[in-house]
Amino acid sequence: MIISENEQLDDLQIKGLKIIQKKDGFKFGTDAVLLSDFAKDLPSDCTLDLCTGTGIVPLLLSAKTSARAIHAIEIQPEAAETAKRSVEINGLEDRIFIRCGDLRECVGEYGKRRFDLITCNPPYMRAGAALLNGNNSKIIARHEVMCNLEDIVRVSSQLLSLSGHLVMVHRPSRLCDLMYLMRKYEIEPKRIRFVHKDASKPPVLFLADGLYKGKSDVKVLPPLILYDEKGEESAELKKIYQRSEN
Amino acid sequence: MIISENEQLDDLQIKGLKIIQKKDGFKFGTDAVLLSDFAKDLPSDCTLDLCTGTGIVPLLLSAKTSARAIHAIEIQPEAAETAKRSVEINGLEDRIFIRCGDLRECVGEYGKRRFDLITCNPPYMRAGAALLNGNNSKIIARHEVMCNLEDIVRVSSQLLSLSGHLVMVHRPSRLCDLMYLMRKYEIEPKRIRFVHKDASKPPVLFLADGLYKGKSDVKVLPPLILYDEKGEESAELKKIYQRSEN
Repeated sequence: MIISENEQLDDLQIKGLKIIQKKDGFKFGTDAVLLSDFAKDLPSDCTLDLCTGTGIVPLLLSAKTSARAIHAIEIQPEAAETAKRSVEINGLEDRIFIRCGDLRECVGEYGKRRFDLITCNPPYMRAGAALLNGNNSKIIARHEVMCNLEDIVRVSSQLLSLSGHLVMVHRPSRLCDLMYLMRKYEIEPKRIRFVHKDASKPPVLFLADGLYKGKSDVKVLPPLILYDEKGEESAELKKIYQRSEN
Repeated sequence: MIISENEQLDDLQIKGLKIIQKKDGFKFGTDAVLLSDFAKDLPSDCTLDLCTGTGIVPLLLSAKTSARAIHAIEIQPEAAETAKRSVEINGLEDRIFIRCGDLRECVGEYGKRRFDLITCNPPYMRAGAALLNGNNSKIIARHEVMCNLEDIVRVSSQLLSLSGHLVMVHRPSRLCDLMYLMRKYEIEPKRIRFVHKDASKPPVLFLADGLYKGKSDVKVLPPLILYDEKGEESAELKKIYQRSEN
Protein backbone atom coordinates (compact mmCIF):
# COMPACT_ATOMS: atom_id res chain seq x y z
CA MET A 1 0.00 0.00 0.00
CA ILE A 2 1.63 3.20 -1.15
CA ILE A 3 0.74 6.69 0.01
CA SER A 4 2.18 9.11 -2.52
CA GLU A 5 4.13 12.18 -1.62
CA ASN A 6 1.26 14.60 -2.21
CA GLU A 7 -1.04 12.62 0.09
CA GLN A 8 -1.54 12.41 3.83
CA LEU A 9 -2.98 9.66 6.03
CA ASP A 10 -5.47 11.09 8.53
CA ASP A 11 -6.74 9.33 11.64
CA LEU A 12 -10.54 9.38 11.83
CA GLN A 13 -10.39 8.89 15.61
CA ILE A 14 -13.01 6.18 15.52
CA LYS A 15 -12.22 2.46 15.70
CA GLY A 16 -8.72 3.15 14.43
CA LEU A 17 -9.93 4.15 10.95
CA LYS A 18 -7.69 6.10 8.60
CA ILE A 19 -8.33 8.01 5.39
CA ILE A 20 -6.00 9.02 2.56
CA GLN A 21 -6.44 12.60 1.37
CA LYS A 22 -4.49 14.73 -1.09
CA LYS A 23 -2.53 17.45 0.63
CA ASP A 24 -3.77 20.09 -1.81
CA GLY A 25 -7.10 18.45 -2.71
CA PHE A 26 -10.66 18.58 -1.42
CA LYS A 27 -10.68 17.46 2.23
CA PHE A 28 -13.65 16.11 4.11
CA GLY A 29 -15.28 18.50 6.52
CA THR A 30 -17.60 18.57 9.48
CA ASP A 31 -20.54 18.15 7.08
CA ALA A 32 -19.54 14.56 6.22
CA VAL A 33 -19.17 13.75 9.91
CA LEU A 34 -22.57 15.26 10.77
CA LEU A 35 -24.19 13.45 7.84
CA SER A 36 -22.88 10.06 8.97
CA ASP A 37 -24.03 10.70 12.50
CA PHE A 38 -27.49 11.84 11.39
CA ALA A 39 -27.90 8.63 9.36
CA LYS A 40 -26.44 6.19 11.86
CA ASP A 41 -29.66 4.98 13.55
CA LEU A 42 -31.62 4.31 10.36
CA PRO A 43 -31.98 0.87 8.77
CA SER A 44 -28.74 0.56 6.80
CA ASP A 45 -28.22 -3.08 5.93
CA CYS A 46 -27.56 -2.25 2.28
CA THR A 47 -26.30 1.32 1.99
CA LEU A 48 -25.16 3.57 -0.87
CA ASP A 49 -23.18 6.79 -0.64
CA LEU A 50 -23.45 9.13 -3.63
CA CYS A 51 -20.69 11.66 -4.47
CA THR A 52 -18.45 9.78 -2.06
CA GLY A 53 -15.23 11.63 -2.91
CA THR A 54 -12.39 9.98 -1.01
CA GLY A 55 -14.87 7.77 0.86
CA ILE A 56 -15.24 9.54 4.19
CA VAL A 57 -18.95 8.78 4.62
CA PRO A 58 -18.71 5.00 3.94
CA LEU A 59 -15.71 4.77 6.28
CA LEU A 60 -17.59 6.52 9.09
CA LEU A 61 -20.76 4.51 8.46
CA SER A 62 -18.76 1.29 8.67
CA ALA A 63 -17.85 2.31 12.22
CA LYS A 64 -21.19 3.81 13.28
CA THR A 65 -23.61 1.27 11.81
CA SER A 66 -23.92 -2.47 11.37
CA ALA A 67 -24.41 -2.09 7.59
CA ARG A 68 -23.53 -5.33 5.85
CA ALA A 69 -22.67 -3.69 2.53
CA ILE A 70 -21.82 -0.04 1.94
CA HIS A 71 -21.61 0.82 -1.74
CA ALA A 72 -20.25 4.18 -2.83
CA ILE A 73 -19.98 5.95 -6.15
CA GLU A 74 -17.67 8.75 -7.23
CA ILE A 75 -17.33 10.26 -10.71
CA GLN A 76 -13.72 11.47 -10.38
CA PRO A 77 -11.30 8.58 -11.06
CA GLU A 78 -8.54 9.94 -8.84
CA ALA A 79 -10.81 10.39 -5.82
CA ALA A 80 -12.41 6.97 -6.38
CA GLU A 81 -9.00 5.33 -6.59
CA THR A 82 -7.93 7.06 -3.37
CA ALA A 83 -11.14 5.88 -1.69
CA LYS A 84 -10.39 2.29 -2.74
CA ARG A 85 -6.93 2.48 -1.18
CA SER A 86 -8.42 3.85 2.05
CA VAL A 87 -10.84 0.92 2.14
CA GLU A 88 -7.89 -1.48 1.74
CA ILE A 89 -5.76 0.28 4.37
CA ASN A 90 -8.63 -0.27 6.82
CA GLY A 91 -9.21 -3.86 5.71
CA LEU A 92 -12.84 -3.12 4.84
CA GLU A 93 -12.93 -4.64 1.33
CA ASP A 94 -15.68 -7.05 2.44
CA ARG A 95 -18.02 -4.23 3.53
CA ILE A 96 -17.24 -1.13 1.43
CA PHE A 97 -17.45 -1.23 -2.36
CA ILE A 98 -16.27 1.84 -4.26
CA ARG A 99 -17.32 2.34 -7.87
CA CYS A 100 -16.02 5.02 -10.22
CA GLY A 101 -18.94 6.15 -12.35
CA ASP A 102 -21.71 8.61 -13.10
CA LEU A 103 -24.56 8.42 -10.61
CA ARG A 104 -26.99 9.46 -13.36
CA GLU A 105 -26.33 6.12 -15.03
CA CYS A 106 -26.00 3.84 -12.03
CA VAL A 107 -29.54 2.52 -11.62
CA GLY A 108 -28.97 -0.22 -14.17
CA GLU A 109 -25.73 -1.23 -12.51
CA TYR A 110 -26.97 -1.38 -8.93
CA GLY A 111 -30.57 -2.39 -9.67
CA LYS A 112 -33.78 -0.64 -8.61
CA ARG A 113 -35.14 -0.69 -5.03
CA ARG A 114 -31.92 -2.14 -3.73
CA PHE A 115 -30.85 0.21 -0.91
CA ASP A 116 -32.20 0.69 2.61
CA LEU A 117 -30.19 3.85 3.05
CA ILE A 118 -28.68 6.35 0.62
CA THR A 119 -26.44 9.13 1.90
CA CYS A 120 -25.11 12.11 -0.04
CA ASN A 121 -22.91 15.08 0.78
CA PRO A 122 -23.38 16.73 -2.63
CA PRO A 123 -21.65 19.60 -4.38
CA TYR A 124 -23.25 22.64 -2.75
CA MET A 125 -22.95 25.27 -5.45
CA ARG A 126 -25.14 25.63 -8.51
CA ALA A 127 -23.31 25.05 -11.78
CA GLY A 128 -23.90 28.67 -12.69
CA ALA A 129 -21.89 29.96 -9.73
CA ALA A 130 -18.47 31.40 -10.53
CA LEU A 131 -16.07 28.68 -11.65
CA LEU A 132 -12.85 30.49 -11.03
CA ASN A 133 -11.07 27.91 -8.91
CA GLY A 134 -8.16 26.56 -10.94
CA ASN A 135 -8.29 23.08 -9.40
CA ASN A 136 -10.71 21.06 -11.52
CA SER A 137 -11.27 18.27 -8.99
CA LYS A 138 -12.25 20.82 -6.34
CA ILE A 139 -14.67 22.47 -8.78
CA ILE A 140 -16.40 19.14 -9.41
CA ALA A 141 -16.56 18.38 -5.69
CA ARG A 142 -18.09 21.76 -4.90
CA HIS A 143 -20.23 22.71 -7.91
CA GLU A 144 -23.10 20.99 -9.68
CA VAL A 145 -21.05 20.37 -12.81
CA MET A 146 -21.33 16.59 -13.20
CA CYS A 147 -24.68 16.18 -11.45
CA ASN A 148 -27.23 18.43 -9.81
CA LEU A 149 -29.57 18.09 -6.85
CA GLU A 150 -32.42 16.88 -9.05
CA ASP A 151 -30.23 14.08 -10.48
CA ILE A 152 -29.36 12.94 -6.97
CA VAL A 153 -32.95 12.87 -5.70
CA ARG A 154 -34.37 11.33 -8.90
CA VAL A 155 -31.80 8.53 -8.96
CA SER A 156 -32.21 7.92 -5.21
CA SER A 157 -35.94 7.55 -5.69
CA GLN A 158 -35.28 4.69 -8.14
CA LEU A 159 -32.64 3.03 -5.98
CA LEU A 160 -34.37 3.17 -2.59
CA SER A 161 -36.27 0.18 -1.30
CA LEU A 162 -39.78 0.70 0.08
CA SER A 163 -39.31 2.48 3.40
CA GLY A 164 -35.71 3.28 2.44
CA HIS A 165 -34.20 6.61 3.53
CA LEU A 166 -32.27 9.30 1.65
CA VAL A 167 -30.15 11.36 4.04
CA MET A 168 -28.42 14.51 2.87
CA VAL A 169 -26.54 17.53 4.14
CA HIS A 170 -26.79 20.84 2.29
CA ARG A 171 -26.67 24.59 2.68
CA PRO A 172 -29.78 26.28 4.09
CA SER A 173 -30.17 28.32 0.88
CA ARG A 174 -31.09 25.04 -0.85
CA LEU A 175 -33.73 24.02 1.71
CA CYS A 176 -36.67 24.72 -0.56
CA ASP A 177 -34.96 23.06 -3.55
CA LEU A 178 -34.46 19.87 -1.57
CA MET A 179 -37.95 19.82 0.02
CA TYR A 180 -39.52 20.40 -3.38
CA LEU A 181 -37.45 17.76 -5.18
CA MET A 182 -37.88 15.14 -2.46
CA ARG A 183 -41.64 15.44 -2.63
CA LYS A 184 -41.58 15.54 -6.43
CA TYR A 185 -39.76 12.19 -6.44
CA GLU A 186 -41.85 10.63 -3.63
CA ILE A 187 -39.18 10.86 -0.95
CA GLU A 188 -40.99 12.57 1.89
CA PRO A 189 -38.89 14.66 4.30
CA LYS A 190 -39.35 13.22 7.79
CA ARG A 191 -36.55 14.83 9.85
CA ILE A 192 -34.79 18.16 9.32
CA ARG A 193 -32.05 19.51 11.54
CA PHE A 194 -30.37 22.88 11.17
CA VAL A 195 -26.71 23.20 12.12
CA HIS A 196 -25.57 26.46 13.68
CA LYS A 197 -22.08 27.56 14.64
CA ASP A 198 -23.73 29.55 17.39
CA ALA A 199 -27.37 29.55 18.58
CA SER A 200 -27.87 33.24 17.84
CA LYS A 201 -26.72 32.99 14.21
CA PRO A 202 -28.36 31.64 11.04
CA PRO A 203 -27.67 27.97 10.32
CA VAL A 204 -24.65 27.09 8.18
CA LEU A 205 -25.95 23.68 7.09
CA PHE A 206 -28.99 21.48 7.38
CA LEU A 207 -29.47 17.73 7.55
CA ALA A 208 -32.48 16.11 5.90
CA ASP A 209 -33.86 12.58 6.15
CA GLY A 210 -36.47 11.57 3.58
CA LEU A 211 -38.50 8.35 3.49
CA TYR A 212 -39.40 6.79 0.15
CA LYS A 213 -43.22 6.75 -0.15
CA GLY A 214 -43.45 8.27 3.34
CA LYS A 215 -46.46 10.21 4.62
CA SER A 216 -46.34 14.01 4.66
CA ASP A 217 -45.30 15.11 8.16
CA VAL A 218 -41.82 16.43 8.92
CA LYS A 219 -40.14 16.81 12.33
CA VAL A 220 -37.85 19.81 12.66
CA LEU A 221 -35.41 18.82 15.40
CA PRO A 222 -33.71 21.10 17.94
CA PRO A 223 -30.86 23.17 16.45
CA LEU A 224 -27.48 21.43 16.39
CA ILE A 225 -25.07 23.94 17.88
CA LEU A 226 -21.39 23.39 17.03
CA TYR A 227 -19.67 25.78 19.43
CA ASP A 228 -20.46 27.05 22.90
CA GLU A 229 -20.30 30.65 24.13
CA LYS A 230 -16.52 30.34 24.62
CA GLY A 231 -16.06 29.26 21.00
CA GLU A 232 -15.22 25.71 22.06
CA GLU A 233 -16.75 22.56 20.59
CA SER A 234 -20.18 21.91 22.06
CA ALA A 235 -20.78 18.74 24.05
CA GLU A 236 -22.91 17.42 21.18
CA LEU A 237 -20.21 18.02 18.56
CA LYS A 238 -17.64 16.27 20.76
CA LYS A 239 -20.00 13.33 21.09
CA ILE A 240 -20.55 13.20 17.32
CA TYR A 241 -16.79 13.21 16.72
CA GLN A 242 -16.55 10.45 19.33
CA ARG A 243 -13.40 11.93 20.84
CA SER A 244 -13.72 8.90 23.01
CA GLU A 245 -15.39 5.87 21.45
CA ASN A 246 -18.88 5.07 22.67
CA MET B 1 -70.89 50.55 19.77
CA ILE B 2 -72.03 47.60 21.83
CA ILE B 3 -69.84 44.89 23.27
CA SER B 4 -72.10 42.00 24.15
CA GLU B 5 -72.02 40.14 27.42
CA ASN B 6 -70.09 37.16 26.11
CA GLU B 7 -67.35 39.39 24.67
CA GLN B 8 -64.30 41.13 26.11
CA LEU B 9 -62.36 44.17 24.90
CA ASP B 10 -58.62 43.51 24.98
CA ASP B 11 -55.90 46.15 24.82
CA LEU B 12 -53.32 45.33 22.12
CA GLN B 13 -50.72 47.48 23.94
CA ILE B 14 -49.69 49.21 20.74
CA LYS B 15 -50.90 52.68 19.73
CA GLY B 16 -53.93 52.29 22.00
CA LEU B 17 -55.49 49.61 19.79
CA LYS B 18 -58.23 47.37 21.13
CA ILE B 19 -59.78 44.13 19.91
CA ILE B 20 -63.13 42.51 20.65
CA GLN B 21 -62.97 38.78 21.34
CA LYS B 22 -65.55 36.28 22.48
CA LYS B 23 -64.96 35.13 26.03
CA ASP B 24 -65.39 31.46 25.06
CA GLY B 25 -64.26 31.74 21.42
CA PHE B 26 -61.01 31.41 19.50
CA LYS B 27 -58.54 34.01 20.81
CA PHE B 28 -55.57 35.37 18.95
CA GLY B 29 -52.21 33.99 20.04
CA THR B 30 -48.52 34.74 19.84
CA ASP B 31 -48.52 33.39 16.28
CA ALA B 32 -50.59 36.34 14.97
CA VAL B 33 -48.28 38.78 16.75
CA LEU B 34 -45.14 37.09 15.35
CA LEU B 35 -46.66 37.00 11.86
CA SER B 36 -47.42 40.74 11.88
CA ASP B 37 -43.93 41.50 13.09
CA PHE B 38 -42.30 39.25 10.50
CA ALA B 39 -44.23 41.04 7.72
CA LYS B 40 -43.85 44.59 8.95
CA ASP B 41 -40.84 45.68 6.90
CA LEU B 42 -42.09 44.39 3.54
CA PRO B 43 -43.79 46.59 0.94
CA SER B 44 -47.38 46.69 2.19
CA ASP B 45 -49.15 49.59 0.51
CA CYS B 46 -52.07 47.36 -0.47
CA THR B 47 -52.30 44.42 1.93
CA LEU B 48 -54.65 41.46 2.33
CA ASP B 49 -55.03 39.20 5.36
CA LEU B 50 -56.57 35.78 4.69
CA CYS B 51 -58.38 33.82 7.43
CA THR B 52 -58.44 37.02 9.47
CA GLY B 53 -60.72 35.76 12.24
CA THR B 54 -61.49 38.67 14.56
CA GLY B 55 -59.02 40.87 12.68
CA ILE B 56 -55.94 40.74 14.88
CA VAL B 57 -53.42 40.77 12.02
CA PRO B 58 -54.90 43.79 10.15
CA LEU B 59 -55.12 45.69 13.43
CA LEU B 60 -51.47 45.02 14.27
CA LEU B 61 -50.36 45.77 10.69
CA SER B 62 -52.18 49.11 10.84
CA ALA B 63 -49.92 50.02 13.76
CA LYS B 64 -46.69 48.46 12.51
CA THR B 65 -46.77 49.46 8.82
CA SER B 66 -47.73 52.44 6.70
CA ALA B 67 -50.12 50.30 4.61
CA ARG B 68 -52.67 52.53 2.91
CA ALA B 69 -55.32 49.81 2.61
CA ILE B 70 -55.51 46.57 4.59
CA HIS B 71 -58.15 44.21 3.28
CA ALA B 72 -59.11 41.12 5.25
CA ILE B 73 -61.35 38.17 4.56
CA GLU B 74 -63.01 35.77 6.98
CA ILE B 75 -65.46 33.00 6.16
CA GLN B 76 -67.25 32.88 9.51
CA PRO B 77 -69.94 35.62 9.67
CA GLU B 78 -69.75 36.04 13.43
CA ALA B 79 -65.97 36.51 13.49
CA ALA B 80 -66.11 38.87 10.49
CA GLU B 81 -68.80 40.95 12.17
CA THR B 82 -66.72 41.13 15.36
CA ALA B 83 -63.68 42.18 13.30
CA LYS B 84 -65.75 45.00 11.71
CA ARG B 85 -66.74 46.29 15.14
CA SER B 86 -63.10 46.22 16.28
CA VAL B 87 -62.14 48.27 13.23
CA GLU B 88 -64.83 50.81 14.11
CA ILE B 89 -63.86 50.96 17.80
CA ASN B 90 -60.35 51.86 16.68
CA GLY B 91 -61.59 54.36 14.08
CA LEU B 92 -59.75 52.53 11.28
CA GLU B 93 -62.62 52.26 8.77
CA ASP B 94 -60.58 54.24 6.24
CA ARG B 95 -57.66 51.75 6.32
CA ILE B 96 -59.02 48.31 7.23
CA PHE B 97 -61.72 46.65 5.11
CA ILE B 98 -63.21 43.41 6.41
CA ARG B 99 -65.08 41.12 4.05
CA CYS B 100 -67.06 38.03 5.00
CA GLY B 101 -66.54 35.46 2.29
CA ASP B 102 -64.80 32.38 0.97
CA LEU B 103 -61.16 33.01 0.04
CA ARG B 104 -61.43 30.35 -2.68
CA GLU B 105 -63.81 32.65 -4.53
CA CYS B 106 -62.31 36.03 -3.79
CA VAL B 107 -60.02 36.57 -6.79
CA GLY B 108 -62.89 37.95 -8.90
CA GLU B 109 -63.95 40.27 -6.12
CA TYR B 110 -60.55 41.72 -5.30
CA GLY B 111 -59.00 41.49 -8.77
CA LYS B 112 -55.80 39.72 -9.82
CA ARG B 113 -52.31 41.09 -9.04
CA ARG B 114 -53.72 43.64 -6.66
CA PHE B 115 -51.81 43.06 -3.41
CA ASP B 116 -48.24 43.95 -2.41
CA LEU B 117 -48.49 41.84 0.72
CA ILE B 118 -50.69 38.91 1.73
CA THR B 119 -50.57 37.58 5.27
CA CYS B 120 -52.18 34.43 6.61
CA ASN B 121 -52.35 32.71 9.98
CA PRO B 122 -54.18 29.66 8.67
CA PRO B 123 -55.96 26.78 10.34
CA TYR B 124 -53.08 24.50 11.36
CA MET B 125 -54.70 21.09 11.39
CA ARG B 126 -55.48 18.92 8.40
CA ALA B 127 -59.18 18.39 7.82
CA GLY B 128 -58.70 14.71 8.54
CA ALA B 129 -57.53 15.35 12.11
CA ALA B 130 -60.01 14.53 14.88
CA LEU B 131 -62.97 16.93 14.79
CA LEU B 132 -64.20 16.35 18.29
CA ASN B 133 -64.31 19.92 19.54
CA GLY B 134 -67.96 20.81 20.11
CA ASN B 135 -67.47 24.49 19.21
CA ASN B 136 -67.91 24.73 15.45
CA SER B 137 -66.29 28.16 15.06
CA LYS B 138 -63.16 26.91 16.83
CA ILE B 139 -63.05 23.86 14.55
CA ILE B 140 -63.14 26.08 11.46
CA ALA B 141 -60.44 28.38 12.87
CA ARG B 142 -58.15 25.45 13.67
CA HIS B 143 -58.82 22.80 11.00
CA GLU B 144 -58.65 22.88 7.22
CA VAL B 145 -62.40 22.47 6.88
CA MET B 146 -63.35 25.50 4.77
CA CYS B 147 -60.00 25.89 2.99
CA ASN B 148 -56.67 24.10 2.96
CA LEU B 149 -53.08 25.20 2.56
CA GLU B 150 -53.14 24.64 -1.19
CA ASP B 151 -56.21 26.91 -1.56
CA ILE B 152 -54.42 29.66 0.35
CA VAL B 153 -51.22 29.49 -1.70
CA ARG B 154 -53.01 29.08 -5.05
CA VAL B 155 -55.31 32.06 -4.44
CA SER B 156 -52.41 34.17 -3.12
CA SER B 157 -50.47 33.45 -6.28
CA GLN B 158 -53.32 34.99 -8.30
CA LEU B 159 -53.78 37.98 -6.01
CA LEU B 160 -50.14 38.99 -5.52
CA SER B 161 -48.63 41.74 -7.61
CA LEU B 162 -45.29 41.12 -9.29
CA SER B 163 -42.74 41.18 -6.46
CA GLY B 164 -45.55 40.84 -3.93
CA HIS B 165 -44.97 38.78 -0.78
CA LEU B 166 -46.99 36.03 0.90
CA VAL B 167 -46.14 35.79 4.60
CA MET B 168 -47.41 32.91 6.70
CA VAL B 169 -47.01 31.28 10.08
CA HIS B 170 -47.48 27.53 10.46
CA ARG B 171 -46.46 24.48 12.44
CA PRO B 172 -43.06 22.95 11.59
CA SER B 173 -44.73 19.67 10.60
CA ARG B 174 -46.15 21.53 7.59
CA LEU B 175 -42.79 22.98 6.47
CA CYS B 176 -42.44 20.71 3.47
CA ASP B 177 -46.10 21.19 2.47
CA LEU B 178 -45.66 24.94 2.41
CA MET B 179 -42.27 24.92 0.62
CA TYR B 180 -43.66 22.56 -2.01
CA LEU B 181 -46.89 24.50 -2.56
CA MET B 182 -45.19 27.89 -2.68
CA ARG B 183 -42.85 26.72 -5.42
CA LYS B 184 -45.66 24.95 -7.24
CA TYR B 185 -47.57 28.25 -7.41
CA GLU B 186 -44.51 30.40 -8.23
CA ILE B 187 -44.18 31.98 -4.80
CA GLU B 188 -40.55 31.39 -3.94
CA PRO B 189 -39.64 31.12 -0.24
CA LYS B 190 -37.09 33.84 0.54
CA ARG B 191 -37.00 33.96 4.37
CA ILE B 192 -37.79 31.24 6.89
CA ARG B 193 -37.60 31.66 10.64
CA PHE B 194 -38.19 28.96 13.20
CA VAL B 195 -39.76 29.91 16.54
CA HIS B 196 -38.63 28.02 19.64
CA LYS B 197 -39.92 28.25 23.18
CA ASP B 198 -36.38 27.42 24.23
CA ALA B 199 -33.18 27.14 22.14
CA SER B 200 -32.59 23.50 23.06
CA LYS B 201 -36.07 22.35 21.97
CA PRO B 202 -37.65 21.74 18.56
CA PRO B 203 -39.44 24.74 17.06
CA VAL B 204 -43.13 25.23 17.82
CA LEU B 205 -43.85 27.41 14.79
CA PHE B 206 -42.19 28.78 11.70
CA LEU B 207 -42.58 31.99 9.75
CA ALA B 208 -42.24 31.99 5.96
CA ASP B 209 -41.95 34.85 3.49
CA GLY B 210 -42.40 34.00 -0.19
CA LEU B 211 -41.89 36.29 -3.17
CA TYR B 212 -44.13 35.96 -6.23
CA LYS B 213 -41.93 35.02 -9.21
CA GLY B 214 -38.87 35.21 -6.93
CA LYS B 215 -35.57 33.45 -7.64
CA SER B 216 -34.79 30.19 -5.84
CA ASP B 217 -32.63 31.02 -2.81
CA VAL B 218 -33.98 30.99 0.73
CA LYS B 219 -32.45 32.55 3.85
CA VAL B 220 -32.99 30.63 7.05
CA LEU B 221 -32.76 33.25 9.80
CA PRO B 222 -31.48 32.80 13.37
CA PRO B 223 -33.93 30.96 15.63
CA LEU B 224 -36.50 33.19 17.34
CA ILE B 225 -36.39 32.20 21.00
CA LEU B 226 -39.49 33.12 23.02
CA TYR B 227 -38.29 32.48 26.57
CA ASP B 228 -34.95 32.75 28.32
CA GLU B 229 -33.35 30.23 30.68
CA LYS B 230 -35.46 31.53 33.57
CA GLY B 231 -38.67 30.97 31.58
CA GLU B 232 -39.19 34.71 31.16
CA GLU B 233 -40.00 36.44 27.88
CA SER B 234 -36.87 36.91 25.80
CA ALA B 235 -35.72 40.42 24.93
CA GLU B 236 -36.77 39.82 21.33
CA LEU B 237 -40.29 38.71 22.26
CA LYS B 238 -40.68 41.77 24.48
CA LYS B 239 -39.59 43.96 21.59
CA ILE B 240 -42.04 42.26 19.22
CA TYR B 241 -44.87 42.81 21.70
CA GLN B 242 -43.72 46.43 21.95
CA ARG B 243 -44.34 46.52 25.68
CA SER B 244 -43.28 50.09 25.21
CA GLU B 245 -44.05 51.68 21.84
CA ASN B 246 -41.13 52.19 19.51
